[in-house]
Amino acid sequence: MKKLVLLRHGESQWNRENRFTGWVDIDLSEKGREEAKAAGQLLKDEGFVFDMAYASVLKRAIRTLWTVLDQMDLMWIPVTKSWRLNERHYGALQGLNKTETAQRHGDEQVLIWRRSYDTPPPALDADDERHPSKDRRYAALTPEELPATECLKDTVARFLPYWHETIAPQIMDGKRVIITAHGNSLRALVKYLDNISDEDIVGLNIPTGIPLVYELDDDLKPIRSYYLGDQEELKKAQEAVAKQGKA
Amino acid sequence: MKKLVLLRHGESQWNRENRFTGWVDIDLSEKGREEAKAAGQLLKDEGFVFDMAYASVLKRAIRTLWTVLDQMDLMWIPVTKSWRLNERHYGALQGLNKTETAQRHGDEQVLIWRRSYDTPPPALDADDERHPSKDRRYAALTPEELPATECLKDTVARFLPYWHETIAPQIMDGKRVIITAHGNSLRALVKYLDNISDEDIVGLNIPTGIPLVYELDDDLKPIRSYYLGDQEELKKAQEAVAKQGKA
Repeated sequence: MKKLVLLRHGESQWNRENRFTGWVDIDLSEKGREEAKAAGQLLKDEGFVFDMAYASVLKRAIRTLWTVLDQMDLMWIPVTKSWRLNERHYGALQGLNKTETAQRHGDEQVLIWRRSYDTPPPALDADDERHPSKDRRYAALTPEELPATECLKDTVARFLPYWHETIAPQIMDGKRVIITAHGNSLRALVKYLDNISDEDIVGLNIPTGIPLVYELDDDLKPIRSYYLGDQEELKKAQEAVAKQGKA
Repeated sequence: MKKLVLLRHGESQWNRENRFTGWVDIDLSEKGREEAKAAGQLLKDEGFVFDMAYASVLKRAIRTLWTVLDQMDLMWIPVTKSWRLNERHYGALQGLNKTETAQRHGDEQVLIWRRSYDTPPPALDADDERHPSKDRRYAALTPEELPATECLKDTVARFLPYWHETIAPQIMDGKRVIITAHGNSLRALVKYLDNISDEDIVGLNIPTGIPLVYELDDDLKPIRSYYLGDQEELKKAQEAVAKQGKA
């Protein structure tokens, strides 16, 4: 049996301010740093060990991973970062407050932008300062790869090739892997692993800073999955994520 | 013209306690963490930018690099870690106090062990707990690659293949590189770059936490090299390193 650990970054400054973040490179809040430490301690206490780690190119995920590896005395393992693990690109909503956006456009519209599988938020203009073409870290991407907005379907489409070509072969090869990423990029992977329908994925929320363990068979089909730690805390955290986009 | 930055990790706990460290995975002291921050700030202030980074698999170098990348807002760049950048293996001296060792064996013998180009310190036994064969991070090394002790010549011999095969091609390709490593692994590289003789390398000391900049031509021959920052502080730091092994 193979184990894979997924970890959404700890609370960021903009999680705290209830703003749409997407590809904006916002750092962890103090609480988020504490969550990352606690996740590392929990993984260590539960006897987890990793051979390699993956993260997005956004610092809230990287700092979460660094903190976990530090806690586990695993700073030396290989870490690979890829834009394909980034949060879903939130288009022109990036930077806006979620509640204010709901007041302006209605709860329903915001829920569609947040959770619809195939309706993306309004796109960024190509000359918008926030467009990823302005950011050196995305310089190697083709124009077709550079998103100006994404629905979850788009995130699935750019995450899964990386899963199949890069991460899955390592797990098949016996490597113990942790992936530190984002609410929606992890939902994209969970949708694939658990074969969740386009409709049902809307209701799935992944809390910050709580390790999600997948036990996989030799073909990487899930045998079971579970969150580590206090199950009551977990439920509260999931409900809090679900409520964020309401006026 | 190409630029390469070499950085010896900040002060470690055992630098502070004046003990031989080698491959023992000792963390930075508080002062070492401050040195790493200051190095990152200095590199940022001087307008340096990096495309990729290399470190050893020892946490004092990795934490130094992470701190520098954090200060420079470059946490997202690729980081590659390799045992070939590790500190020189100090054999059976690892863990011993430098001054006590000098009192027992004499200043001259300790200077030979510390700085002779081709005389290694006494080797670790294969069944010694400190032997790298007991450490999971070196599991992929062949028995011939696993050192039980090293002189600087040995460190040069295992560092340079990595330089030629992995780091140098990236610099030739225009990548701006920082290498965060150790007193002796960086001496190994400096000896090669500056074509320093086996005799003269004995007198070369690299201080902790001060960026050493190489300007290289298209064949990676040095045009000039210099330390960043206050040149008086630098001189004091170099003299302090030279004095460490005396009774």
